[in-house]
Amino acid sequence: MSKEKYMELAITLARSTIGQTSPNPSVGAVVVKEGQIIGMGSHLKAGKEHAEVYALDQAGDQSVGADIYVTLEPCAHHGKTPPCANLLVERKVKKAYIATVDPNPKVAGKGIEILRNAGIEVEVGLMEEEARKINEMFFYYMNHKQPFVTMKAAMTLDGKIATASGDSKWITSEQARADVHQERARHDAILVGANTVKHDNPQLTVRLPQGGKNPIRVILSTKLSIQADRHVLNHEAPTWIVCGQQADAEAFQKKYPHIKVIQMDTDEMELEEVLKALGEHGIQSLYVEGGSRVHHSFLEKQLFQECHWYIAPKLLGGADAIPVIGGKSPSKMADALDVTIDSMEQVGTDIKIIARPKGGN
Amino acid sequence: MSKEKYMELAITLARSTIGQTSPNPSVGAVVVKEGQIIGMGSHLKAGKEHAEVYALDQAGDQSVGADIYVTLEPCAHHGKTPPCANLLVERKVKKAYIATVDPNPKVAGKGIEILRNAGIEVEVGLMEEEARKINEMFFYYMNHKQPFVTMKAAMTLDGKIATASGDSKWITSEQARADVHQERARHDAILVGANTVKHDNPQLTVRLPQGGKNPIRVILSTKLSIQADRHVLNHEAPTWIVCGQQADAEAFQKKYPHIKVIQMDTDEMELEEVLKALGEHGIQSLYVEGGSRVHHSFLEKQLFQECHWYIAPKLLGGADAIPVIGGKSPSKMADALDVTIDSMEQVGTDIKIIARPKGGN
Repeated sequence: MSKEKYMELAITLARSTIGQTSPNPSVGAVVVKEGQIIGMGSHLKAGKEHAEVYALDQAGDQSVGADIYVTLEPCAHHGKTPPCANLLVERKVKKAYIATVDPNPKVAGKGIEILRNAGIEVEVGLMEEEARKINEMFFYYMNHKQPFVTMKAAMTLDGKIATASGDSKWITSEQARADVHQERARHDAILVGANTVKHDNPQLTVRLPQGGKNPIRVILSTKLSIQADRHVLNHEAPTWIVCGQQADAEAFQKKYPHIKVIQMDTDEMELEEVLKALGEHGIQSLYVEGGSRVHHSFLEKQLFQECHWYIAPKLLGGADAIPVIGGKSPSKMADALDVTIDSMEQVGTDIKIIARPKGGN
Repeated sequence: MSKEKYMELAITLARSTIGQTSPNPSVGAVVVKEGQIIGMGSHLKAGKEHAEVYALDQAGDQSVGADIYVTLEPCAHHGKTPPCANLLVERKVKKAYIATVDPNPKVAGKGIEILRNAGIEVEVGLMEEEARKINEMFFYYMNHKQPFVTMKAAMTLDGKIATASGDSKWITSEQARADVHQERARHDAILVGANTVKHDNPQLTVRLPQGGKNPIRVILSTKLSIQADRHVLNHEAPTWIVCGQQADAEAFQKKYPHIKVIQMDTDEMELEEVLKALGEHGIQSLYVEGGSRVHHSFLEKQLFQECHWYIAPKLLGGADAIPVIGGKSPSKMADALDVTIDSMEQVGTDIKIIARPKGGN
């Protein structure tokens, strides 16, 4: 096999754990000696062994003089596990193929330095793009200290998410809804506006036959006014509520001690500040499920990295129906935000379009 | 070559003239003898020879005992040309492969009868579906006596066709706009509402580098109130205005004798009646270019057979922006009209989606 094939395997190993390793990235490692794979592994979950540990343990004594393929630079810091870079030195590997350097600017290159200082040959950048893609949200977070934001909506073919009276059940097919649950599972948090909680009373949990981690439910509610019977107040998944300065957080916390309240410094919540706060609380990826006005805030400030549109094959009509992006229209069409279509696929009977702001970060 | 291959050639010949034969259908014919193609032809334009005439003329004396492949049943009536069925008899062809029978219920089967009575072997239905598709609008018109309606719109990825102030230039790419001009050329008429004329002042002509027939411009204007400086009043293409009973058609006609006025029997124009009237005036295919309210009328009454959405990769936002389908929203999402996606393709940087009402006619 070629070195690309070994790295491809490492990438496949990494990709298989997307959504289950947060706050850590997904990483895969393959150890090769004399054309034989003698060890492989994936980081499975935060707190568990890193990919290199599993792969080198499988290799055992054979690791001496072997090559290792790893999708991300081996760590150089003492975290929940000892530094992997040191482990590679200890196990006397000969050469390390590293797809991407650590995205954290503070540690980037330190793992590689340890290897090189110990005389291990290092090749960086093999299949870098594919490897970066796996941990795109992690990379984004590391660089910006705020979550990678995905705007999601289910709409009709004429861009509506609900009738004038607010009815939206169901726009899309079961398969599209299952796809949404999968997307939820790979995000750290879901965000919706207080209006969506009020009108739709969503559960915002992951309901998949094979299970899946529930993301944190983040609700934007300036005044902390959530009706007592709303699902988001239950214990099925963690809920965080972001509120404005004037809200009575203390009273709310007394009533709902299991819910985290993040209170902003201003009366009107500034979205940039909300995202910063979520970043400070460790949210790397945020799945924004609307509604119409929340989407508008994210569009207006260009505070999203991706948008996922599920378009159902139906036409609703109605200038009074609720559009996927509400708020106030710019006066010129030329002021619309240009996006690029990343992908377009059929999901059940619906169309899923993934787009990103043009020239976006 | 197999008989399917010969018919495929006849279909290709027919397809090449889509949009230039109206009110006649597009038809192709291939004459074959002893494995050699000895004649072929297409009907090029209403008033010119039918496909069979060209093909049999090329075959000359050789047509005796030959096979003919024709995409539509040879005509049996004396129109602008003598009946083709009689010509086949005269030229002593041995066998006729006919993809589809004449859709006109009054004449369907009469051409075939002439052939069979003269001892010509006839096989009907070879590649029927492909052949029907070529003249789908013609078939629809023949069966319903009103035009096949295509709703067209250019919109943003969030379903808007203009900003709140009405600005819509330009939503889609040049390639998408060129595609629209091609679609215009293959329709008998374009329809827009008076509002679109007022706000956008469209020319509604075909502007393609290689040219193309201008369809009739049909304007819905209850009160016959079109500003004098509007392009649709010029001589570049025929314009028909459909108005209500109370409009002063006489005064308008005196002022604009080159424009046809179709006056309905009621004050508020009923769309069903408008389509019937257009059918009576020979319009087989109608390309509805909006705006928002006109689309809503067609949706509400389910009076369209296809919708062509050009979706540009941009997000506008705005609950006050103009949605692709306006009017009043149904109260339940379940009342949205189900459609099936016929095709989805990239045109320039835009997405073109063709959909049809589910179980539509």
